[in-house]
Amino acid sequence: MGRKILIVGGVAGGASAAARLRRLSEEDQIIMFEKGSHVSFSNCCLPYHLSGVVEDADSLVLMSPEKFLKQYNIEARVNNEVLSIDRENKEITVKNLLTGEEYKESYDKLILSPGARPIVPPIPGIEKVNVFSIRNVVDIDRLNKFVKSMKTKNVVVIGGGFIGVEAAENLKEAGYDVTLIEAMPQIMKPFDYDMVQILHKELYDNGVNLILGDRVSYFEKDTVILESGKKIEAEAVVMAIGVAPETELAVKAGLELGETGAIKVDQNYRTNDEDIYAVGDAIEVYHALTNSYTKLPLAGPAQKQARGVADHINGMQINNTGFIGSSVIKVFSYNAASTGLNEGLIKALNLNIKYDVVKIIPGDKVGLMPGCEPVHFKLIYEIPTGRVLGAQAIGKGNVDKRIDVIATAIKFGATVNDLRDLELCYAPPFGTAKDVVNLAGYVGSNLLHGLFKQVHSSDVRGLVESGACIIDVREKNEYEQSHIIGAKNIPLSELRERLDEIPKDEPVYLHCRSGQRSYNAVLALQNLGFKNVYNISAGFMGLCFYEYFNDKTTGRNKIVTDYNFE
Amino acid sequence: MGRKILIVGGVAGGASAAARLRRLSEEDQIIMFEKGSHVSFSNCCLPYHLSGVVEDADSLVLMSPEKFLKQYNIEARVNNEVLSIDRENKEITVKNLLTGEEYKESYDKLILSPGARPIVPPIPGIEKVNVFSIRNVVDIDRLNKFVKSMKTKNVVVIGGGFIGVEAAENLKEAGYDVTLIEAMPQIMKPFDYDMVQILHKELYDNGVNLILGDRVSYFEKDTVILESGKKIEAEAVVMAIGVAPETELAVKAGLELGETGAIKVDQNYRTNDEDIYAVGDAIEVYHALTNSYTKLPLAGPAQKQARGVADHINGMQINNTGFIGSSVIKVFSYNAASTGLNEGLIKALNLNIKYDVVKIIPGDKVGLMPGCEPVHFKLIYEIPTGRVLGAQAIGKGNVDKRIDVIATAIKFGATVNDLRDLELCYAPPFGTAKDVVNLAGYVGSNLLHGLFKQVHSSDVRGLVESGACIIDVREKNEYEQSHIIGAKNIPLSELRERLDEIPKDEPVYLHCRSGQRSYNAVLALQNLGFKNVYNISAGFMGLCFYEYFNDKTTGRNKIVTDYNFE
Repeated sequence: MGRKILIVGGVAGGASAAARLRRLSEEDQIIMFEKGSHVSFSNCCLPYHLSGVVEDADSLVLMSPEKFLKQYNIEARVNNEVLSIDRENKEITVKNLLTGEEYKESYDKLILSPGARPIVPPIPGIEKVNVFSIRNVVDIDRLNKFVKSMKTKNVVVIGGGFIGVEAAENLKEAGYDVTLIEAMPQIMKPFDYDMVQILHKELYDNGVNLILGDRVSYFEKDTVILESGKKIEAEAVVMAIGVAPETELAVKAGLELGETGAIKVDQNYRTNDEDIYAVGDAIEVYHALTNSYTKLPLAGPAQKQARGVADHINGMQINNTGFIGSSVIKVFSYNAASTGLNEGLIKALNLNIKYDVVKIIPGDKVGLMPGCEPVHFKLIYEIPTGRVLGAQAIGKGNVDKRIDVIATAIKFGATVNDLRDLELCYAPPFGTAKDVVNLAGYVGSNLLHGLFKQVHSSDVRGLVESGACIIDVREKNEYEQSHIIGAKNIPLSELRERLDEIPKDEPVYLHCRSGQRSYNAVLALQNLGFKNVYNISAGFMGLCFYEYFNDKTTGRNKIVTDYNFE
Repeated sequence: MGRKILIVGGVAGGASAAARLRRLSEEDQIIMFEKGSHVSFSNCCLPYHLSGVVEDADSLVLMSPEKFLKQYNIEARVNNEVLSIDRENKEITVKNLLTGEEYKESYDKLILSPGARPIVPPIPGIEKVNVFSIRNVVDIDRLNKFVKSMKTKNVVVIGGGFIGVEAAENLKEAGYDVTLIEAMPQIMKPFDYDMVQILHKELYDNGVNLILGDRVSYFEKDTVILESGKKIEAEAVVMAIGVAPETELAVKAGLELGETGAIKVDQNYRTNDEDIYAVGDAIEVYHALTNSYTKLPLAGPAQKQARGVADHINGMQINNTGFIGSSVIKVFSYNAASTGLNEGLIKALNLNIKYDVVKIIPGDKVGLMPGCEPVHFKLIYEIPTGRVLGAQAIGKGNVDKRIDVIATAIKFGATVNDLRDLELCYAPPFGTAKDVVNLAGYVGSNLLHGLFKQVHSSDVRGLVESGACIIDVREKNEYEQSHIIGAKNIPLSELRERLDEIPKDEPVYLHCRSGQRSYNAVLALQNLGFKNVYNISAGFMGLCFYEYFNDKTTGRNKIVTDYNFE
């Protein structure tokens, strides 16, 4: 005799759990309840409907209830909201949203996969604007039809996370005048402030009106008023400031929440009721690098958790070693991927971790190959172990593969020395003989073993303002094109003949285009007896990206004669 | 006082060693000897000059001797051939190939990085054809100029390894009539016979006259005569049957060779003379998965070895855990990557390894995204441990990242269960929430734990010919478009209603398009009491690729009504 297994929520987590449950047993009765009108749609593709990349909203729905029934013998009840759980009698109360009818359904096992809902704060005057949020196919269809019908082109997106940035990009691609407002000084928290400047610049260069460090004060008729006093016209306002786990049902049923406010689950994704599991955006997960609980609203982890639950219900052991959070986003012509810890997170959580940073900007393939593009790569590793803690990569080419390699390496506790030795596949159209990851390993290993010292792009403004000795070791023609104001040009090729021009008693800061030639120069000077020599990591290119957006938008003093991003 | 370090060979290994040596010491005198006219050129880019992707042959040279001297204080003597090594007196004899002058140079440490030379066998009549091989910039320039001056368009490439295939592709792209001849039944040994059919088809579809399992018997005037009797006109013949390590200098000096005939080195890449190191294509390396020595003529390992030698000379410990051999190649619109062991290698070396194979063909990104392409993915893992031994991926999209992840996983002794749990970065333009690698881990884990049984594309012909029960669980319209001759169509959506049509007493073989729906069907049938059910791995698409090229070129009986590669 089979069991009766009910699933609340029919998208990523719910649908995955149902399918795996069916594969493991033909006897179990499996019913999914979804309060929306679709199960198994592609949440992550929703923003791409706005630009027409996904032309037909219906195609966002991957599986119909009919298909679930026919192919998997799974009943999917859409437009059916689960109102409450009676844990004692092991039954739920469900409301059919189309008929208004309420009914009960008993269960042997219950899986909660209700997801998270977009946060729409009660900002004064919110009724005076057309507010949209993006959670499902109905939402995106509604938003898309609305913007197409507008008299103006003015759209404001509030919130610079994944959904906000993707919505802004796709609306801009569709020809709207888009303002993206982020309350923090940066968008996209998976990236550190220095790295994310590349994305700020890209949004700015593509005509998105990006406003950072400012928040909505109130709304007037079709207008957003910011705390700074700025007024922005907006026929449509997309709210994407974040999501909150759907915990209401769980709370009402007396299920425990964790320290983050999301549903608390054990090693097997089981709540404090042994017959009730929970997965996906509604739960908190153990972060394997912070050693604390966190919310991780990503599709991949949700599907893995769901599969784990189906396995556990069927008596299989599951392996839950926690999560590290890997993600990627396309922002116009840039790809940006990250995994594990970043500096911002380490600081925000006040983690007791000592770390150092490698930043390099190598080519993503052999320079002779068409389409070779720089990869801005940042690696974070633990001191003194060299254990890899996280990485970020941004570029126009294949950055995701480098982050996938790091994510895999982190899983196995890799150190910077291990990265050095990885054998990654190479041919000129795909990479370089020493891949970006190997190079980061080399630099990390050199730093770890004290071979040289470095400063970062974020330090350079201070150095310039304090009149520090900065030496640009690029060739003369490169220096003349643009350079750091006040920097002295001693090309690497002339370095050994011009040693007398370099002070021995004060700190000297060297840079080239991306940091590689200056690294050679730093080691040469050290070996020649200069004791206080620093490499400016990521070089002139890293600095330009770091400074450019702020200079453009805040009108600061420039510390670069001109910006050169070649 | 610095040491005097001499380096024989100035390309990948030699140049890398020199640069790292300089970074670690300013005092050492470093001299590179290169018998060719260039140091530090991009070997791997050479074939791309033929198509004009790399337009200017000079741009293949990455560093000039002048630059080595100015930037690194390294002397690079091109056109200088090292003739012999006097180990007792620690000096070498060098011939200046331009002046004919011979001279001696003493050393404290000597590094051999002489590379490997293209094998040109003494085939009868070889003087009657214009024979070329591809080793350096002079070679490729000469070949390129020759083909441009030919009266006909006829070029024959002999040998289907990396260089042969890349030369054939680039010559074809340049408009020549190219015949590629391979003596074995397949090109590109890093891929198994089933996988490489995709590349065979791609060469064939792009108009390369691909001849397999046939070899050159002799040459007549501008004509290649094969053992089969075939005659092929060829104004130019490119010899790319393989390379042989340059061991002459080492042998004359009494340095030991290993079992493969390449130079034998220890953990630190040191020969049996403690002051002489060797790296690159001339040495044999320890293969971490076969536990035996092998030749591995790849640029990445050469550079890593070179860096290791420089470190060891400077008193640093190096970590040499052996090599697994990762590589990638572009073949027209396909990318093909591999790492570790494949079935062919396991069989050829007669390795005492029990293994199983996962073969899947998922999309490389979300199906709704433009440019989504299938990834043909093959994973090999050890029985009973589940340890990952190797993988191959072929497709039009990002296959290299999946292989880089596997290469990293192998490095850490990962099992199929580990692959399942990897957190790889996901957004619709880049992948799927469960990445190809995760999916392979799922299937491998299911196989390992006995959840289902499978057969492979290579088994299907025998099944068809023996009249086995093959059930196609795709929808009716898919079946009608093309199917396996004799297969019965029971769509997954009708499976549970049509159980009486499925024999219980004999083996049943199920397939769909790529193997996923049929996997669900296999489990359903098993759970319903069918004991002898097999999934045809990689499904109909895998079978089509497997059979197509042979059918086209050998005129075999078709076992597929029509080929459908959608």
